[in-house]
Amino acid sequence: MIVILKENAAVQAVQSLVDNFKSIGFDVHISQGSTHTILGLIGDTGKLDIDQIKMLEWVDDVKRIQEPFKNANRKFHPQDTVIKVKDAVIGGGSMTVIAGPCSVESEEQIITVARSVKASGAKLLRGGAFKPRTSPYAFQGLRDEGIRLLLEAKKDTGLPIVTEIMDLSQLELFNDVDVIQVGARNMQNFELLKQLGHTNKPILLKRGLANTYQELLMSAEYIMAFGNENVILCERGVRTFETYTRNTLDISAVPALKILSHLPVIVDPSHAAGMAKFVAPLSLSAVAAGADGLIIEVHNNPACAKCDGMQSLTMPDFDTLMKKINIMKEAQVACNSL
Amino acid sequence: MIVILKENAAVQAVQSLVDNFKSIGFDVHISQGSTHTILGLIGDTGKLDIDQIKMLEWVDDVKRIQEPFKNANRKFHPQDTVIKVKDAVIGGGSMTVIAGPCSVESEEQIITVARSVKASGAKLLRGGAFKPRTSPYAFQGLRDEGIRLLLEAKKDTGLPIVTEIMDLSQLELFNDVDVIQVGARNMQNFELLKQLGHTNKPILLKRGLANTYQELLMSAEYIMAFGNENVILCERGVRTFETYTRNTLDISAVPALKILSHLPVIVDPSHAAGMAKFVAPLSLSAVAAGADGLIIEVHNNPACAKCDGMQSLTMPDFDTLMKKINIMKEAQVACNSL
Amino acid sequence: MIVILKENAAVQAVQSLVDNFKSIGFDVHISQGSTHTILGLIGDTGKLDIDQIKMLEWVDDVKRIQEPFKNANRKFHPQDTVIKVKDAVIGGGSMTVIAGPCSVESEEQIITVARSVKASGAKLLRGGAFKPRTSPYAFQGLRDEGIRLLLEAKKDTGLPIVTEIMDLSQLELFNDVDVIQVGARNMQNFELLKQLGHTNKPILLKRGLANTYQELLMSAEYIMAFGNENVILCERGVRTFETYTRNTLDISAVPALKILSHLPVIVDPSHAAGMAKFVAPLSLSAVAAGADGLIIEVHNNPACAKCDGMQSLTMPDFDTLMKKINIMKEAQVACNSL
Amino acid sequence: MIVILKENAAVQAVQSLVDNFKSIGFDVHISQGSTHTILGLIGDTGKLDIDQIKMLEWVDDVKRIQEPFKNANRKFHPQDTVIKVKDAVIGGGSMTVIAGPCSVESEEQIITVARSVKASGAKLLRGGAFKPRTSPYAFQGLRDEGIRLLLEAKKDTGLPIVTEIMDLSQLELFNDVDVIQVGARNMQNFELLKQLGHTNKPILLKRGLANTYQELLMSAEYIMAFGNENVILCERGVRTFETYTRNTLDISAVPALKILSHLPVIVDPSHAAGMAKFVAPLSLSAVAAGADGLIIEVHNNPACAKCDGMQSLTMPDFDTLMKKINIMKEAQVACNSL
Repeated sequence: MIVILKENAAVQAVQSLVDNFKSIGFDVHISQGSTHTILGLIGDTGKLDIDQIKMLEWVDDVKRIQEPFKNANRKFHPQDTVIKVKDAVIGGGSMTVIAGPCSVESEEQIITVARSVKASGAKLLRGGAFKPRTSPYAFQGLRDEGIRLLLEAKKDTGLPIVTEIMDLSQLELFNDVDVIQVGARNMQNFELLKQLGHTNKPILLKRGLANTYQELLMSAEYIMAFGNENVILCERGVRTFETYTRNTLDISAVPALKILSHLPVIVDPSHAAGMAKFVAPLSLSAVAAGADGLIIEVHNNPACAKCDGMQSLTMPDFDTLMKKINIMKEAQVACNSL
Repeated sequence: MIVILKENAAVQAVQSLVDNFKSIGFDVHISQGSTHTILGLIGDTGKLDIDQIKMLEWVDDVKRIQEPFKNANRKFHPQDTVIKVKDAVIGGGSMTVIAGPCSVESEEQIITVARSVKASGAKLLRGGAFKPRTSPYAFQGLRDEGIRLLLEAKKDTGLPIVTEIMDLSQLELFNDVDVIQVGARNMQNFELLKQLGHTNKPILLKRGLANTYQELLMSAEYIMAFGNENVILCERGVRTFETYTRNTLDISAVPALKILSHLPVIVDPSHAAGMAKFVAPLSLSAVAAGADGLIIEVHNNPACAKCDGMQSLTMPDFDTLMKKINIMKEAQVACNSL
Repeated sequence: MIVILKENAAVQAVQSLVDNFKSIGFDVHISQGSTHTILGLIGDTGKLDIDQIKMLEWVDDVKRIQEPFKNANRKFHPQDTVIKVKDAVIGGGSMTVIAGPCSVESEEQIITVARSVKASGAKLLRGGAFKPRTSPYAFQGLRDEGIRLLLEAKKDTGLPIVTEIMDLSQLELFNDVDVIQVGARNMQNFELLKQLGHTNKPILLKRGLANTYQELLMSAEYIMAFGNENVILCERGVRTFETYTRNTLDISAVPALKILSHLPVIVDPSHAAGMAKFVAPLSLSAVAAGADGLIIEVHNNPACAKCDGMQSLTMPDFDTLMKKINIMKEAQVACNSL
Repeated sequence: MIVILKENAAVQAVQSLVDNFKSIGFDVHISQGSTHTILGLIGDTGKLDIDQIKMLEWVDDVKRIQEPFKNANRKFHPQDTVIKVKDAVIGGGSMTVIAGPCSVESEEQIITVARSVKASGAKLLRGGAFKPRTSPYAFQGLRDEGIRLLLEAKKDTGLPIVTEIMDLSQLELFNDVDVIQVGARNMQNFELLKQLGHTNKPILLKRGLANTYQELLMSAEYIMAFGNENVILCERGVRTFETYTRNTLDISAVPALKILSHLPVIVDPSHAAGMAKFVAPLSLSAVAAGADGLIIEVHNNPACAKCDGMQSLTMPDFDTLMKKINIMKEAQVACNSL
């Protein structure tokens, strides 16, 4: 950590700061510049609060050299983390597809979709039981009953299931859920993250609407710091000034997160654009960019879906897309070997 | 609600859509344009799901005429809502100042600050017990003990208290809290909003980092739809590309929210900029723009604050700012009377 | 165009508006809703100023049904535009790579790079002569001399050249340039666009830092309305809150622009991320998403480049990338045929 | 400037970098941290290209200590710059109002408005002759004739005039214009800025849609570096995800730019929100925040304005607003004296 002092800081002031930092366990190197004195703190600065140091008298600015996340950091864990969910693996160059309806609507619907996406090659089933909706007047999901129906579909098809938790109080309903999803709006629901850190379930953590890579990794860190290292990062589009698409898919998040972290990175092309016709090109671009998986909305009858029908693929369209994904993944592997 | 059909929709297709809408209780007016047929739906369209209608065959686009929020809408409630918290009132042209430290750190600290801000003219005391922090390694607040100390300060000074809830499970600790704050990161924690709708406490609802006015009002609608009409809206800066300030205060939110809604609107200048030296100019601009109140961070020793010291005012600086706020409020009232 | 009147507009007011619109040549359909009267204007509304209509008494809101761009609109020109530049073609499913240094630095440099990128498979040579730099103290390009050196490289290799114009006064220097680039910062330099509309040169038009698809297409429309239909659209990343990458590549722009317009769409992965290590994954994702080409920065010695060295590939790295692009393009074609 | 080396940089590599920096005239201090070696460069680093240094082998990151702008920097010019335009002064705590129509439409119109705004207290007259319009089909301004009419209005009223230049080729028409405006879309039209640096006219430089304070100041630096120190900075709203207002007024720009620079800062409330009803609250908030002036659109008949009528005030509304501005300015001065 580098501490830049204000211009003309007096010798005594500098010495007092240096003593201060030494007293809490850091080595300090002093550089005297033409206008500013700069202190380099040596030691474990990860737990220092950068804002508090900025407040100290004579301090002009503070710059971190090391990232503030540790467990999620590739520097301390160079190998890719690979997460196993029953027969599925996510990470380490996988292309694992999670598919299913936005929300669970009936036993017939979820089983129909589950069988279909399994036949097409999906390895996990997604489906919303608890639905975060902007309007209190919109369909809020089947809730407990939705979880029960997902478990039926799991029993029927053998596909492990992924579904979203919206509040801590729902946690006990997730005992037989295979992967717990934390939605974009809850990415910084820190109480929830802490409790998920006490489980041993894989957590699919979606990036918030306006959160940076570092903030996403700090939220992963919350889960990991409490003991659960099974975190799957998910890019699902961020909010920008462009309104033609629902969100703006930040495809650079794939290589960026893989540089910064060892955790698997998947992409949600359905929420990214919000329109079914964008799902194929965005899925293929994510495969090409090196994503470890995709989470895709598929519905047996999108026009009648209780939510997000606009962005859901039909089952035949998903089947075609899976064929394209396979072609593209092969090309991506071939590229990687060059 | 206006439903725009695709070019060249056949007569039969149009008729079938019209029948469909009539069967669910709407009157439909048909306009035949040069390229598109347009349907006007007449009736209570507030509960229709715009995305679902977009999915219907032959539908090209759907545009809402009415806002999707009702309880929070000024159209149906022209008078300003005024919220009373003990002796304080918020709304209807008030300039009510809420002040206190970012986080409660000790009994001595909170009582010192409480007495001081009361003497300067603050009408409510703020203080964080549960702290949402980006890093799991940062100070997370005194939690239960923090609430207890706030209640001590309330007993000592008579100031009603405002503090943030981070999770539903904390709710019973808030029995004697006067105003419950929902932070920016929880603005779309819908399960929390619903439960707060079942209380009768005033809720201070902060705008999310990247949420629109309409989304903020839809979150207020969640609380109001479940029975609690005491919602105070708070603009605290949004996230943009500018990094010099911590967030970008959207001062237009004040007149915009007051046009759209009857709820009180306050401004948080401390979080908006993230630097103490911006608190005075931003506070004064909020007064001039017509805000009903301000929530300001004040600390007895900002350089040693356990969080957000950079943006906290000292007690003497807050005292001076209150004098300025009073001058400015008087000018704003004089302007209003022209 | 749909004109929504204020609640309770009197019959006479409605009639007066209708007469008004009829007098300027529109047919008008009236829909009487439960709260609002809505007028549908039928005729060529492309030249109506939406803001002016919003100003009319009793008008509450105005919504366009048709896009405001015509020449660039795929609706009126369903086939892909294919632009020929000597032996190269851009558009219609091509994967044409433009490569070269950020700025032309010397005859040796530009010829070395030109020969190398040609050997690797690039079809056009890029190189900056006039350089838009944030700082007046940074290298501003070799200017006239830079153009001369590019023409030398063209003579040597036969590659057509692409270079950026920064001001109308430079136009005569571009006589022998094959493709004129308009940079992101000049996307709405309307005087420049108009004059380029009077040339017959292909124009490579980069999307501005914070411009929507529609604004990009309106800028293309400026060029096309004045007679030049040879416009190549270029996505190069937009500005968001994320600062890890220099810009945020909006990969959805590729399918979106191809839906909205018949013009070719290429991607600039070098400026999008600003770091060499992102160029390969972003290039491949653009190929997978269906881009018609790429424009990539390549330098014989990136560490000594006079600008943007951080985002330039070495010549060997570009050679490897071209092999990957070819593999990926083959996969994309195979996917398309499904 | 601080240069952070990669982990485990070899002693020889470090020495070679140090020699390299010394050879180009810098003193270098070396700090050996636990994981990284850090070099502090001492000397005039303002002209170093930060990106080029990042490219050097073994360099991990580079951080600037000093701002890259000099002429515009308050550190080297602590007193406020005050710009005189005939009898008007802008800067140093002034509240100078520039008013007039978005575009000049006729002699009668511009003279009517000019006389009216002068009577209400405006000190300069604005009016667009060259109009940057998103659509090539929209009114583009009266151009040369518009300038002529502005000069008539100046002769009639004595008010100095402010009007926008869109291209260098128009410069000779601006001989008798008092203040040349550079619009948001041209903020980084560097060729234009350079030439304006060779004039001695005050330049009103508007912040771009998505440009940072530092970029605005670097554009001012372009003008100043070429000899013209008369630059007026103008905040006019930035582009965000919020679409209710046309742009998002960044009120913090006022105190921020005044901390960073000695140049006058004015605010454009008309373009910021794009709606007439927001002009008064935003104007008052700008006064309260300490702006040196305002530029406000006023029209004799907003409903018939050829552009931007929605955001134009009527002449009586402007007259009332001026009274409010005077009240608010008095309050702001009183606050400042505390």
